[in-house]
Amino acid sequence: MKRKMPSKNKEIVHTNQVRVRFEETDPLGIVWHGNYIKYFEDGREAFGRKHGISYLDQKHHGFATPIVKSSTEHKRPLKYGDIATIKTIFVDSPAAKMIFRYEIYNQDALVVCTGETTQVFVDDIGNGELSLNIPEFFMAWKKQVGLL
Amino acid sequence: MKRKMPSKNKEIVHTNQVRVRFEETDPLGIVWHGNYIKYFEDGREAFGRKHGISYLDQKHHGFATPIVKSSTEHKRPLKYGDIATIKTIFVDSPAAKMIFRYEIYNQDALVVCTGETTQVFVDDIGNGELSLNIPEFFMAWKKQVGLL
Amino acid sequence: MKRKMPSKNKEIVHTNQVRVRFEETDPLGIVWHGNYIKYFEDGREAFGRKHGISYLDQKHHGFATPIVKSSTEHKRPLKYGDIATIKTIFVDSPAAKMIFRYEIYNQDALVVCTGETTQVFVDDIGNGELSLNIPEFFMAWKKQVGLL
Amino acid sequence: MKRKMPSKNKEIVHTNQVRVRFEETDPLGIVWHGNYIKYFEDGREAFGRKHGISYLDQKHHGFATPIVKSSTEHKRPLKYGDIATIKTIFVDSPAAKMIFRYEIYNQDALVVCTGETTQVFVDDIGNGELSLNIPEFFMAWKKQVGLL
Repeated sequence: MKRKMPSKNKEIVHTNQVRVRFEETDPLGIVWHGNYIKYFEDGREAFGRKHGISYLDQKHHGFATPIVKSSTEHKRPLKYGDIATIKTIFVDSPAAKMIFRYEIYNQDALVVCTGETTQVFVDDIGNGELSLNIPEFFMAWKKQVGLL
Repeated sequence: MKRKMPSKNKEIVHTNQVRVRFEETDPLGIVWHGNYIKYFEDGREAFGRKHGISYLDQKHHGFATPIVKSSTEHKRPLKYGDIATIKTIFVDSPAAKMIFRYEIYNQDALVVCTGETTQVFVDDIGNGELSLNIPEFFMAWKKQVGLL
Repeated sequence: MKRKMPSKNKEIVHTNQVRVRFEETDPLGIVWHGNYIKYFEDGREAFGRKHGISYLDQKHHGFATPIVKSSTEHKRPLKYGDIATIKTIFVDSPAAKMIFRYEIYNQDALVVCTGETTQVFVDDIGNGELSLNIPEFFMAWKKQVGLL
Repeated sequence: MKRKMPSKNKEIVHTNQVRVRFEETDPLGIVWHGNYIKYFEDGREAFGRKHGISYLDQKHHGFATPIVKSSTEHKRPLKYGDIATIKTIFVDSPAAKMIFRYEIYNQDALVVCTGETTQVFVDDIGNGELSLNIPEFFMAWKKQVGLL
C-alpha cells in the first residue's frame, strides 16, 4: 500500500457550530470537561456528512470505527448560552486509522479547547475484527478528496 | 388472558443507592432534572437483577421493553455528594406492559423525587413488533413472584 | 391576581430542530428515552430565546425556574442521523408556574414523542425561596405576548 | 517552593467499582468512549473521599480544580451489565497541579481503558484566578500522605 506522491500539507477541514446546552454545564457554571468529547463527535460527524465519511457512510461499507485514543486541552471555559465553533481537521496517516484534530472557539474567536481522536476500523458485519489494512472504501475516499 | 385471582396489594419492591455524580449537577448546584430518569433506570435494573427481570433477562427471552411513558415529580433537590436511595416498586397490571413506580429519598429520608415508567414488549429477534399479549416468560415471572 | 379578560385559546408556539447525536442512541439503535428531556429543554430554551423568557432572561430578573414535574409519551423511535422537529407550546396558567407542552416530530412529520413540564419560580439571589405569586417580570411578559 | 527530599516512587492509589449503565452504551452495544471521562471522575472522587482531597474538600478550602488536560486510551470495550474496576493513581508533580492516572479493568482483570487528567487550582471565592503557587491546603495534604 504505497503512496505515489505524498500530498503535502493538504488539510481537509470542516467547521460547524454547537450551542451549549444547560445540562452540559456544571456547578461552576461552565461546560463540564467531559462534554467536549461530545462536541468533538459533533464536529467529526459534521465533517463526515460534508465529506462522505460519516458513521453512517462507514456502516454502509461494513465498518465501525471505534475510538482508541483521545486527548483534550482546555484553555478557556464555555458558559451556558455560548455558541461554540468547532473546527475539525482530518490528519492524514499511512496507518489503518482515522485521526482527527479539533479546535473549539468561543464567540470572540478565542480557543476554548483543542484535542485529537484516533479511530480504527473494525468489521461491523462479521466478527468485529480489527482491520490491519486500510479498508478499500477509505482508500477510495482518500483519493477522492485528493490525499492519494 | 384472564387473571383467576387478583393478587391483593402484593407489592414487589427493591431498594438501592446511587451517589450523585458531579457531572449530573447543574449551575444551580443541584441534580439536573433529566438525570432522575437515569436514577429510575438504575433502580429498575437493580430491581430487575434482584428479581430476574432485568434488561439482560428480557433480552435472553427475545424481548426488548422500550419505555412508552414516563413521569417525574420533583419535591426537593439533590446536591453533589448526596447519596440517594431509590425505591422501585413493581405495579401489577393485566395489560402487556411493565409498570414501575419510583421513590427517591435523600440522606434525611425525605422524598426528593417520585415517578413512574411504562414499558411495552417488542420482539427483539425478529421485526421488532409490539407484543399485544403478555409474553410467556413474563407470565412465568409473575407466577414465580406470586402475582398470579 | 385576577385576570380581567381570559385570553381565549391564544397559543404561543416555537419550533426548532435538533440532530440526534450518536451518544444519545442506545444498544437498540434508538434515542435513549431519557434524552427526550434534553430535547424538551432544547425546545423550551429556543422558545425562551425567541420570546424573551429563556433561562438567562429569568436569571437577569433574579429568578430560577426549577422543573417540578415532567411527563413524556413515546410513540415512535428516533435513530442516529435523524433530525427531529420540536414544537414547544406555552400553556397559560393562572398559577405562579411556567408550563410547556412539547411535540417532537421525525422527518416524515410523524409524532415521535410528546410531553409536558412544569416549572416554579424561586428567588435566585436570596435564599432560594419559592415564589407563591407570579413574579412581576413574568406578568409583564404575559402582557407583552398578549396573554393578559 | 523546593522539595527537600523527593519521595521516591511513593504511589497513592485508590480502587473503586462502577456498574455500566444502559444509557452509557451505544448502538455498537458498548460503552460510548466519552463516558470513560465520567468513570475517571468517579475514580478521582472516590480517591478524593478516601484521602481527603475531593471536590468538596477543595471547595471547603476555597478552591476549584478545573481539568486542563485529559487523555484516554481504549484497549477493550465494556458492555452493558459489566462491572468495571477503576484504579486511580495520584501522580506527584512539583507544579501547582493535580495529576491523576487511571486504569480501568473488566471482570476478567483485563485493561479496558487507561488515561490521565491534569487539574489546576483556581480561586473559588474571589475572581476565579489561577493559582500559580501550590495552595497551602494541598501542601498540607501532600505532607499528610507522605509525599513531602
